[in-house]
Order: sequence, then structure tokens, then C-alpha cells
Amino acid sequence: MTGPSLPLVPSATSAKFPQLGLGTWKAPKGVASKIVAKAIELGYRAIDCACDYGNEQEVGEGIRNGLKAAQLDRESLFVTSKLWNTYHKPEHVRPACMKTLSDLGLDYLDLYMIHFPISLKFVPFEKRYPPEWVHDPEDPENATMRMEKVPLQDTWRALEALVDEGLIRHVGVCNFPYALLEDLLTYSRIRPSVLQIELHPYLQQPRLLQFCKREKIVVTAFSSFGATSYKELGMDRGHNLFEDDCMKHIARKHGKSVAQVALRWAVQRGTAIIPKTSKVERLVENMSVFDWELGEEDMKAIGALDRGLRYNDPGEFCVSLGMGEAVPIYD
Amino acid sequence: MTGPSLPLVPSATSAKFPQLGLGTWKAPKGVASKIVAKAIELGYRAIDCACDYGNEQEVGEGIRNGLKAAQLDRESLFVTSKLWNTYHKPEHVRPACMKTLSDLGLDYLDLYMIHFPISLKFVPFEKRYPPEWVHDPEDPENATMRMEKVPLQDTWRALEALVDEGLIRHVGVCNFPYALLEDLLTYSRIRPSVLQIELHPYLQQPRLLQFCKREKIVVTAFSSFGATSYKELGMDRGHNLFEDDCMKHIARKHGKSVAQVALRWAVQRGTAIIPKTSKVERLVENMSVFDWELGEEDMKAIGALDRGLRYNDPGEFCVSLGMGEAVPIYD
Repeated sequence: MTGPSLPLVPSATSAKFPQLGLGTWKAPKGVASKIVAKAIELGYRAIDCACDYGNEQEVGEGIRNGLKAAQLDRESLFVTSKLWNTYHKPEHVRPACMKTLSDLGLDYLDLYMIHFPISLKFVPFEKRYPPEWVHDPEDPENATMRMEKVPLQDTWRALEALVDEGLIRHVGVCNFPYALLEDLLTYSRIRPSVLQIELHPYLQQPRLLQFCKREKIVVTAFSSFGATSYKELGMDRGHNLFEDDCMKHIARKHGKSVAQVALRWAVQRGTAIIPKTSKVERLVENMSVFDWELGEEDMKAIGALDRGLRYNDPGEFCVSLGMGEAVPIYD
Repeated sequence: MTGPSLPLVPSATSAKFPQLGLGTWKAPKGVASKIVAKAIELGYRAIDCACDYGNEQEVGEGIRNGLKAAQLDRESLFVTSKLWNTYHKPEHVRPACMKTLSDLGLDYLDLYMIHFPISLKFVPFEKRYPPEWVHDPEDPENATMRMEKVPLQDTWRALEALVDEGLIRHVGVCNFPYALLEDLLTYSRIRPSVLQIELHPYLQQPRLLQFCKREKIVVTAFSSFGATSYKELGMDRGHNLFEDDCMKHIARKHGKSVAQVALRWAVQRGTAIIPKTSKVERLVENMSVFDWELGEEDMKAIGALDRGLRYNDPGEFCVSLGMGEAVPIYD
């Protein structure tokens, strides 16, 4: 079984980037492998991973099992991973990529991205992996973030070298505001193929989207459902999308779930989506957003829900979660 | 007459940066020279200029007259100017600085700043000066902005060379969001002394201020009165500070004007201020913010007025004023 053929998003680079991918942030151990394999069997052709998610070994197992079950080769799948904040120094970029490749059991990545435009002091693999945000949780004196001054240009050069070497096919960035992306485009020898940012009806970022369209950079939306991923982290800032009257009304009208409306809205804006789930029935639900359409009126009504509400903001959570000073990358 | 001694703001660099300066944006021809001279006579020790303000020759005349009348030497004054967007290419930075020095009639600047993190296609001096935003207003095909890809790092290197040469004493940036500033600090050999940004009770940017305090970068507030400067430009976004009940109440309580409350608030936050005026009586009014204090309650009440309302936003005005695509440097 190879599943239905799902659409690609147009890209200036040669990347054949599937519009639907499976997110793996917080996919728990014991479930990650199974859900990834099942997604591939069902027709998902992109898996969005990261060192920081702490589950790349399990995800890798799922990729192997899924490809086998679906009788697909590696080339059929688009696998993304992300360079963590502690590995921005040029000499740490290749080892970090190799570690991710080894955990995933792959010999190349389709896309490797800078996870945040935030450079933290190096933590050796053997000391802690993934190292997360805080420099040393065991040592009260170092139990906060420790910044490390590394020019983004230097990190980018090291990523470009990975493309030259064939370890990764494309490079991208996550959580970059416009100004950094514009600067990156002035010095990148290999252009970023993808920008991955938080996007949902309460945070629509239309100008950034327009810019990326002009520059032919694929935009991947994360946290398409808004607050849901952040509640359990104590980062909930209210405004539950699933209880939004407008979203509920549109969902009822089309006989779909609010989640599907949120995903379909993202698809119609031309962004790629990477919804995450631990439930097989949700895998199917989240795929079913390519055979129906939101009308102009629906798009307009959802457009009016924008309130610049950002959940994943290191300018907020670094302080509120006791990691130390704010890193207000969106200020 | 040398006037009263006004305070300096602390700086990590050796800059002796007066907390009060005279702004010269939109100081009209025929008035600029007189008002600058008068300000110096009254005790202003900093003048904030820019190529883009189109009045540096007049301001220079005012500086000469003011220094003479107050019997001061050049070293008594802190003169700032700004590199315009069309001169970001390294080979244009020195000529742009020389042109500003020649217009001002000075042989060095105390501070030279990048005016915007936006690089536009070069326009020769003899073609149009200052070139403003639009590439060629005479040619319908080019009557919009034309971006030019120049890494900010390259522009910064050229500015550092001006310090080495002694043409400028300090380097700074205006309108830089946090993320660009953080990146700049990773590669700058000579650190930025000053960040100049829009700041008023409706746009308080507390996290950016906190960051600059940590990094010992002086923050200069522009547009301390909010909307006033933008009304005549059709960029008024409402919310007149001068009619704000809270501001009016605090002003009455202290027997001061709302303008003075806005400036005093800025001073107590540790920022430098550069109010502009064409009226001599206002020069005096704007100076009188160092011999009285806002109480904790007042500061708190003004703190609560923040609404992230930005007037000077190239993400808005580029489109609304017909200059072309948005340049959303704050997105």
C-alpha cells in the first residue's frame, strides 16, 4: 500500500516538499515509533524531527518500519531535522548532524534547519542529550540558559558545507523573524528552502508569508492548533481555538472538525503543515484536508481572528519557566 | 552663557552621551539653523541629525552659530548622524559619511548610526540627495523601493573602519529589532554604543530595554510624544498621547505638560531623549525634565498604557505611502 498521493508545495529550490508532514514534537517514547510507521503506511511522506524532541532513535525506527510496510525506499520520504541551540559553533554543526543521522538511522537528511536564532553554550553529547535550554540543571549556579556569541553567518556556512558533503539536501531556518531572514538572504550561498514558524488563526503573520512567497521560500506552519501543545507545558495563554465560535461554525458547516478547518486554512494559504498526534484516527483526520475547500467567506472570517497571539516565544517562556533572562527574538 | 549641566547616560563605551539631545527630523529650512543655535545656547549638548532629514547644511550652520554664541568648542557637543539606506554597500559608507561631515561643516561625528536595517539600491549624490525611500520618483517604472542585498556585517565593517580612521567616534544602530542586535553583537569588533528606537508610553518595549541595559548599550528614544510627528505624514494611527486621561492627570498633578511627563518618564527609564521642536519656548519646556520626579505610582500608571503601538513601521508605511512592498522589520 502506498496511500494516496498528497500535494507538494512549490519551492524555488529543487526540494520536493510534501505539504503534509507528521510532527514529532512531544511524541512520547513507546508511541513515536508506531505512529511514525503508521503515518507512512497511510500516505504521509514527510516527517518533521529535531534533536531537541529527544526521540529521534524511536522516530528512526518508525521510519524504517513504515518504509518497509509501505514497500517504499528512502527517497520516497522527506525527512527534516533541526540543529539545536547548543551546536551553533561551526565545529559542532557536523557532529550534531551526524548524531541526528545516526539516531534516525539515515545517511542523509532532506532538510536540516536552525531550530532557533539563539546560540547557547555547548554541552557535550555525553554530558546530556538533548541538552535542552538550561546549561546545567544539576548545578544551581548554571541552571539557567548560557548564551554563546556565534554569528548566524558562521552557523549557516557550516550548514552549507553539509549540503556540499551530501549529508543534507536542503537548509532551512525555524523561528526566524523577517529581519534575520532578510539578512540571511544577503549572505547565503545556498538559500534557505524553508522557514518554519508558528502559524494558526490567532497568529497569522501575513507580511512574513508574503515576503516568503516573493522570495520563494516554503513556509511550514507549526502549532496549527494554537494553544493545545502549550497547555501541558504551562505556556497556555488562553484563547482555545477549539472553542472559538467562528471556527466551530465553519467546521459544522463543512461537516469537519475544527482541527481540519485549521489545517485546511493553512493549506489554502500555501503553507506546509506538520500536525502531530499520538492517535491513529487523528492521523487520518489530519490527512483529510486536501479533498474539500474553504470558501472565500470562510477564509475571510478566519482571517479576522488574527490577534498576534504567540505561544512559542522565548521572550516569554525563558523567564516564566525559570531558564533565565528573556530572549525576545520577536521584539 | 554655557547653560545648566545636564546629565549623561551611562555607557559601556567611552561615549559621554548627553541624556537630552535636540532632534532635527523635519526641522524646516529657515528654522533649523536658528533652533539648533538657540538650543546650544540654552544648554543642549547633543544634536541628532541624519542625511535623510535633508537639512544637515542648515543644522551645521546652527551648530557653528550656537557654539560661537555659547563660547564652546566642538568637543563640548555630541553630534550624531545616520547612514541612509541607499549607502549600505561598503564602498558607499565612507563617501556618505564624508558628505554628511561636509554638510555639517564638521571633521568628525561623535556617533554614526545605521538608520534602518534596510538596504536600498544606491542612488548617486548628484542624482538625488537625500535619496529617501523610492528609487526614482521621476520614472514610473522605478518609483518604488528597490532593495539591495548587503549583509549588515559588511556595512558594520565599513563603519568600524570609519572609527579607525577617526572620522567617527562611536557606531550605533537605529530601528534594529532584538534578533539583529543580538547577531550584531556576535560579530562586531567595535560594539554598538547606542540603539535608537521608537519609544513612548504606547510602545514601551521593556524587554528590548532590559537587554540593552544588560549589554550596556545606550537606548535613545525617538518619537517620545507618539503620534504627533506622524499625523502630517498621514501615518497617524490614532491614540493621541496628549489627550490621554492618565497622562493628563499625571501632568496636572505635577504642574507639568503632558510632553514633559512623557520625557520625564523616558528619562527615569534610563533612556536618552531627542525631542524636536521649532519653537524656542518648547526648547526650554523640553529641557525642564531633570529637576523633578515621577513617583512610583505615576511610573506604574504610565507603564500600563503600553499597547505595542508603533508609528514608524516600514512594514506599514512602505505600502500605505505607495513605496512598494512592505519591509516588515518588526515581524
